[in-house]
Amino acid sequence: MNNATREQPTPVAITMGCPAGIGPEIICRLFGDSDLPVSRQAVVAGDVAVLRQAASRLGMAMGIEPWLPGQPLAEGVIPVLQVGPPRTEPVHWGRPDAAANRVMGQCVEEVVRLVAAGACSGIVTCPISKKGLQAAGYPYPGHTEMLAALTGSPKVRMMMAGPRLKVVLVTIHVALGQVAGLLTQAEIIECIGMTRAALRHDFALPASRIAVAGLNPHNGESGLFGDEESRVIAPAIASFATDTVSGPWPPDTIFHQAASGQYDAVIAMYHDQGLIPFKLLHFQDGVNVTLGLPLVRTSVDHGTAYDIAGKNLADPSSLAAALTMAQTIVANRCRGGDACTQAC
Amino acid sequence: MNNATREQPTPVAITMGCPAGIGPEIICRLFGDSDLPVSRQAVVAGDVAVLRQAASRLGMAMGIEPWLPGQPLAEGVIPVLQVGPPRTEPVHWGRPDAAANRVMGQCVEEVVRLVAAGACSGIVTCPISKKGLQAAGYPYPGHTEMLAALTGSPKVRMMMAGPRLKVVLVTIHVALGQVAGLLTQAEIIECIGMTRAALRHDFALPASRIAVAGLNPHNGESGLFGDEESRVIAPAIASFATDTVSGPWPPDTIFHQAASGQYDAVIAMYHDQGLIPFKLLHFQDGVNVTLGLPLVRTSVDHGTAYDIAGKNLADPSSLAAALTMAQTIVANRCRGGDACTQAC
Repeated sequence: MNNATREQPTPVAITMGCPAGIGPEIICRLFGDSDLPVSRQAVVAGDVAVLRQAASRLGMAMGIEPWLPGQPLAEGVIPVLQVGPPRTEPVHWGRPDAAANRVMGQCVEEVVRLVAAGACSGIVTCPISKKGLQAAGYPYPGHTEMLAALTGSPKVRMMMAGPRLKVVLVTIHVALGQVAGLLTQAEIIECIGMTRAALRHDFALPASRIAVAGLNPHNGESGLFGDEESRVIAPAIASFATDTVSGPWPPDTIFHQAASGQYDAVIAMYHDQGLIPFKLLHFQDGVNVTLGLPLVRTSVDHGTAYDIAGKNLADPSSLAAALTMAQTIVANRCRGGDACTQAC
Repeated sequence: MNNATREQPTPVAITMGCPAGIGPEIICRLFGDSDLPVSRQAVVAGDVAVLRQAASRLGMAMGIEPWLPGQPLAEGVIPVLQVGPPRTEPVHWGRPDAAANRVMGQCVEEVVRLVAAGACSGIVTCPISKKGLQAAGYPYPGHTEMLAALTGSPKVRMMMAGPRLKVVLVTIHVALGQVAGLLTQAEIIECIGMTRAALRHDFALPASRIAVAGLNPHNGESGLFGDEESRVIAPAIASFATDTVSGPWPPDTIFHQAASGQYDAVIAMYHDQGLIPFKLLHFQDGVNVTLGLPLVRTSVDHGTAYDIAGKNLADPSSLAAALTMAQTIVANRCRGGDACTQAC
């Protein structure tokens, strides 16, 4: 635990994301807005010049200063770990160039190194362009796959987390017509297990209550329209203790019950089953948490928004929520003693 | 318009539903609770003895009196049109018998006759047991099909309506794995058309904004996972004016946008796509409105709840919402002049 000699805890690192997107802007607003949660335990991995350009565009007077690993964090400035060569040309908002594409990937690589070295306690990612990432030579569909590869994590999953609802998806980016054929007991069991571990270690809920949704309307009404509930989902649930994991529950009511406080998380069988209710409740403050990584990673719940970049329209509340959640998870893992995998 | 000579408008009729369910109880609470919306323009089609038994069970002192079509409605009593022979044996809460099954169907038949004769302006249905209805010899899967048959309506659809969200479903009780194969342009066009007509005539929205959801996550991401959006849904939408009907919209965000006031209704491709967000927002006050009938019909959004019948636990708020909505629709249809099909 290498912060024993320092006054401040090891900071969480926020990656800038695509320089031409809204990342730099929401970072400046996060640090500059005193109404948002504490940001003093955070640093930014990005480009000092880009962040100064964004602050200037927003009319913010806040200082943006270079930061090096291990340095204490000064109040009233945004501490920026300079990643790659400093940018000399201004960014064209909404129009990423080759240098912008490159630095998106470099920021992630750099923070993974810092966390491994104990200089940062986790990573919060601002949005990137997946196309741009690949154009810069990074062979990953997105952040999550890149982090899994860089940390050698064989299996990762996305949890969408908000104050009222947490959902984890069994299937994700597949056609609706293929979902039923892709559901397996093994996938559902793995998903439940990873959710249970995250609730225990990351959210400090040792006695969590996990609800597993069915697949069909009314759970198939005793096999009248679909039998995946009895054939696939119920046998998977049977692998777990009944006081922790229950279901399958009819999909149209379980999210209301979970949001009312009856469950800590819902396992959804497909993307929109989980994301429709999640975005309805947490459009502003939803956070994407990656399960299965050795490091703490949260992400904003929106994209680069090139159409509004540089226009002072972007809302930093999802970034604020992602940072707060990352800091909470770091603290919970540390309190968990031997479950702690963080340097902090 | 046969109420020209009366002081009160023609009442909406509430059917009692299954006598052994929570119907009688929520009716008593609706009329007895001064905090609930006005019920004076409503009558009950049911059994006087059953309603008195329910009121007694609830400890309510309210009078329950026989009512005949055309009679004025007295204040402070529940006016009950006696349907079938008066019950002589008390109901066993939660345990329907043959007489209970029979009267469920008779109440619906009776109200359809009253509406046709101009003695009632619409019907609000309390929950029935579909199994019980069939055991009594009514060959219908439920209320909706029974009303369609009794009124000779070739095509009916369910709209779930609440203050923040209205949804209409293209497919309903089918296995999730079959939804994609069942979607057709014709069904979607019909669904949009019936929704537009209902918004215009029933909800007094002549310039409605209807959002049509896609089927796949992210609308299939340009065909990467599913192409029903471009192949089936978009061509159906193209049959309508763009200022009224738009889409297909990504399913995971459109319900949030509609609930925020950007749209008057959402066309959902399948049961849980529409009902998960609807029940999340309107678990207490959701109303089922049947589109395509010549009479106004709304229904509570719950079942017979035999497990809590007679225990003074049932919540009348969905019935109150269904009655208020039926009365609003009656008024809107009447204001619509030649669109009015009601006797009022």
